Amino acid sequence: MSGKFITLEGTEGVGKSTNLAVIVQWLESHNIPFIQTREPGGTPLAEQLRELLLAPREEAVDPKAELLMVFAARAQHLAEVVKPALARGEWVLCDRFTDATFAYQGGGRQLPTTLIEELEALVQEGLQPDCTLLLDLCPEVGLSRAQERGELDRFETEAQEFFERVRDAYLSRAKADPERFHVIDAAQSIEAVASDIRKVLDSELTGAGNG
Amino acid sequence: MSGKFITLEGTEGVGKSTNLAVIVQWLESHNIPFIQTREPGGTPLAEQLRELLLAPREEAVDPKAELLMVFAARAQHLAEVVKPALARGEWVLCDRFTDATFAYQGGGRQLPTTLIEELEALVQEGLQPDCTLLLDLCPEVGLSRAQERGELDRFETEAQEFFERVRDAYLSRAKADPERFHVIDAAQSIEAVASDIRKVLDSELTGAGNG
Ligand SMILES: Nc1ncnc2c1ncn2[C@@H]1O[C@H](COP(=O)(O)OP(=O)(O)O)[C@@H](O)[C@H]1O
Ligand SMILES: Nc1ncnc2c1ncn2[C@@H]1O[C@H](COP(=O)(O)OP(=O)(O)O)[C@@H](O)[C@H]1O
Ligand SMILES: [Mg+2]
Ligand SMILES: [Mg+2]
Repeated sequence: MSGKFITLEGTEGVGKSTNLAVIVQWLESHNIPFIQTREPGGTPLAEQLRELLLAPREEAVDPKAELLMVFAARAQHLAEVVKPALARGEWVLCDRFTDATFAYQGGGRQLPTTLIEELEALVQEGLQPDCTLLLDLCPEVGLSRAQERGELDRFETEAQEFFERVRDAYLSRAKADPERFHVIDAAQSIEAVASDIRKVLDSELTGAGNG
Repeated sequence: MSGKFITLEGTEGVGKSTNLAVIVQWLESHNIPFIQTREPGGTPLAEQLRELLLAPREEAVDPKAELLMVFAARAQHLAEVVKPALARGEWVLCDRFTDATFAYQGGGRQLPTTLIEELEALVQEGLQPDCTLLLDLCPEVGLSRAQERGELDRFETEAQEFFERVRDAYLSRAKADPERFHVIDAAQSIEAVASDIRKVLDSELTGAGNG
């Protein structure tokens, strides 16, 4: 049996990290071999790139430089972690992936989608998640949840409109690929969100897909 | 008057840093406004990327990840330093630029040239150096000069053949663009190399070019 590549997406504070634990529990209860990882990051070098990406800084960061750093971290993560795990037949559970790049660098920073697609092709060579859980929530609520975590990173200090564009970009990607995407209403209670996620995973396992 | 973009290229220990001082002296004696910079690096973020690129590490570094980090640093350096200086009419004197990417990641790591050209177009949008001084030297001699500097970085620990491929890639790029490139025999004495470089700069100033 070949492993599935599951990604978790959404704006700040929607509950990605919270629900990773739900998915881990589900995988364990089904005796499915898996690894849990995140982007940007997932290897020592990619985590160092993550730090450079998230650190608030005086210097203005060129949007293309940001985009290239994201894909550099992704290339390293795919080569060293994701592809080897999938090749071993394990599932890969990843907190954010390329949909986040289309949402943040595309929607948020307004870089051309074609540019991101070019880099996606170059780095992923066709590799795509099998299943993407998009936790959708009004950014205002998400940010207020996230702010309780403490110091804000370079993205979290962006304006409200930035996150509105990120959310919209996520939703339009979900609309364009309903087979892969599962949009979850993250405004619900933690238990209701978890229950929706388990339903998606159950259908993923039986191969019923999105229908 | 518009500024010129001068780059200095060559394998380890050929004398790039040594001859930057020669060029600086020449620019000062001609009262030419200029900035001196280097790649990868040249801004705080780009210098942090340089550190990540050069640090020896246990993790194997994916060649594409390395390439994307180089171009991320370049995008930042161009946006924040090189383009603003050229726009102010200043000359830009840079220790390594994209020819080094074709030489190290193309020749050395054997990544496809077309891939590097794609990223070059994406990041530089047509911007090219006006004049490139290629210090050419047998890698063995260069490495023995460089080794006196102390601890070796992630590139300096590569095998002899790696640097032979880097040198060959540099030379074939020079051959393909004799207008921009000036190949200097770096096996000569420090004074003879400096004298050759000053001749190139004199012809650059009078607009006589390479002829
Ligand atoms: N459905 C929910 N309702 C209310 N609070 C939630 C919900 N899901 C998560 N939270 C809380 O919101 C905060 C941010 O959640 P987190 O999982 O860290 O989000 P993310 O990883 O998407 O940024 C945490 O304090 C978490 O307990
Ligand atoms: N033409 C030369 N002949 C002999 N030694 C040289 C020459 N040019 C530079 N060196 C010495 O070689 C070493 C490396 O030079 P450096 O300018 O740091 O090279 P690079 O910056 O290209 O790696 C230094 O110790 C320098 O003094
Ligand atoms: Mg999180
Ligand atoms: Mg040097």
